[in-house]
Amino acid sequence: MSSEAFVTLATTDGYALGALVVAQSLRKVGTQRSLVVMISNNLSDLIKQTLETSFDEVVVVEELNSYDNENLTLLSRPELGVTFTKINCWLLEKYSKCVFLDADVLVLRDIDDLFEREEFSAAPDAGWPDCFNSGVFVYRPSKETFRKLVQFASQQDASFDGGDQGLLNNFFSDWRTSDISRHLPFIYNVTSNTFYSYVPAVKRFRNDIRLVHFAGALKPWQLTYNPQNGKLSGNLEGQHDIQKEFLLHWWKIMYERVWPQLSKNNQQSQQNK
Amino acid sequence: MSSEAFVTLATTDGYALGALVVAQSLRKVGTQRSLVVMISNNLSDLIKQTLETSFDEVVVVEELNSYDNENLTLLSRPELGVTFTKINCWLLEKYSKCVFLDADVLVLRDIDDLFEREEFSAAPDAGWPDCFNSGVFVYRPSKETFRKLVQFASQQDASFDGGDQGLLNNFFSDWRTSDISRHLPFIYNVTSNTFYSYVPAVKRFRNDIRLVHFAGALKPWQLTYNPQNGKLSGNLEGQHDIQKEFLLHWWKIMYERVWPQLSKNNQQSQQNK
Ligand SMILES: O=c1ccn([C@@H]2O[C@H](COP(=O)(O)OP(=O)(O)O)[C@@H](O)[C@H]2O)c(=O)[nH]1
Ligand SMILES: O=c1ccn([C@@H]2O[C@H](COP(=O)(O)OP(=O)(O)O)[C@@H](O)[C@H]2O)c(=O)[nH]1
Ligand SMILES: [Mn+2]
Ligand SMILES: [Mn+2]
Repeated sequence: MSSEAFVTLATTDGYALGALVVAQSLRKVGTQRSLVVMISNNLSDLIKQTLETSFDEVVVVEELNSYDNENLTLLSRPELGVTFTKINCWLLEKYSKCVFLDADVLVLRDIDDLFEREEFSAAPDAGWPDCFNSGVFVYRPSKETFRKLVQFASQQDASFDGGDQGLLNNFFSDWRTSDISRHLPFIYNVTSNTFYSYVPAVKRFRNDIRLVHFAGALKPWQLTYNPQNGKLSGNLEGQHDIQKEFLLHWWKIMYERVWPQLSKNNQQSQQNK
Repeated sequence: MSSEAFVTLATTDGYALGALVVAQSLRKVGTQRSLVVMISNNLSDLIKQTLETSFDEVVVVEELNSYDNENLTLLSRPELGVTFTKINCWLLEKYSKCVFLDADVLVLRDIDDLFEREEFSAAPDAGWPDCFNSGVFVYRPSKETFRKLVQFASQQDASFDGGDQGLLNNFFSDWRTSDISRHLPFIYNVTSNTFYSYVPAVKRFRNDIRLVHFAGALKPWQLTYNPQNGKLSGNLEGQHDIQKEFLLHWWKIMYERVWPQLSKNNQQSQQNK
């Protein structure tokens, strides 16, 4: 096991499906790092068991919450308060350096070179680019930093959006101005909104994209995939073609690499009954 | 006259109305710099005359064009080929340093501190934030740079979007990695797409915004303003409330500071007939 790790988080079965695809997409591109998932106690047994076979380590953490409904309403995302739970990742001190990945990302190409970066590195957010997007970041586990973050999070208006992104941007507030090497290239965290706003750039840099991030309300696991015709159905209205291709890519990994494990574990648990 | 200047561009009467608002919004916040507008020969006499009373200098330039229809179709903006004309701004060698502003921006607060920056400084684009947005940038006029840019622009695929933004990003290609001081804060060039993608950040930084940029297909001068009830009409569907407020702000300057000049010039030209 490497002393460096990719870390993700899942507090629901839906996000856990995402985490399973994160793990498989990392294995597919041949990562040399350990894979860690933080979970809360809400997951079904089957999902939990499958996480255990896919990740090197499963860590149960306590849920933290911002309870900031005003700002979460602005985002139309009441579920994001629980993303404060993310800061538990600083407790993983047995790793010297980590890359946190949201459970709604898909790795397309090798990203192990992220470990050459230092805390705190993240890519600009394609909404307000003076903020970083908190779906992908490089950090150093440290109980001390965790303690400071919890203290910070307990203050009023700790997060300007009610989620972890507003919190971490307030905490690592010198990201914008201090050191350009802490700015990850956007190709390490290409968020879905990009596909509407600047298509020529997406086409230009398409083959450089290392990771896509299904940020926003529509998550891949909310769609339905038909393996017979290779088509997706569900709330796909208004989604850009490039976005649809990435969603399909996500589902191919789900179908080819995650489902077999889920059904194997399911059969075993049936037999054990 | 200052040896430093704000420079804008208008090749049509519509964009020229924008340029007039740019000038008045800069005067309103008390700029100490010269105001320069580059125009082509398509403008009506009344507009041209009014530009002459609002700007310190009006420079007639030759239109350049990318004729890159494939990429401009991706943007749904066939009119953007002519934005190559922008690079004429490097010819203004009588100024030691300049800030280029698109004609579709509105200055809300003093931005003279931009002249402390060096060529080439620009703010990240909120669509693909590893590119800069070319609506606001700091540069040093130089015939030599102009010559290089024209040569560069004449190559195939000089611009990945068919407009000046793709061209300038290809030319100043080390902007992303070389020097963080060349990254202008986003508050100096807040583009319209932001208002849909990350509202909590907009609210958080609202009072810091120095300049809004009506980038995209809807331009303020395409709307209608009713001074009786202070309301806007036109194709406003789907526009965010904050965006509407800025559009209204643009129209107040148009109504209070530009129209009086236009009608005065109009009366005088009627009398001279
Ligand atoms: O109910 C939730 C919501 C979020 N998350 C975790 O927090 C991350 C951030 O939330 P999300 O990706 O939905 O935010 P977005 O990227 O859409 O802003 C997710 O990827 C998950 O890792 C979770 O485990 N349970
Ligand atoms: O027909 C045109 C199109 C553009 N422009 C100039 O080029 C700039 C860039 O175009 P625009 O602002 O429409 O591009 P956007 O910011 O929407 O990408 C404008 O602000 C004007 O200064 C012009 O003079 N005539
Ligand atoms: Mn996410
Ligand atoms: Mn513009």
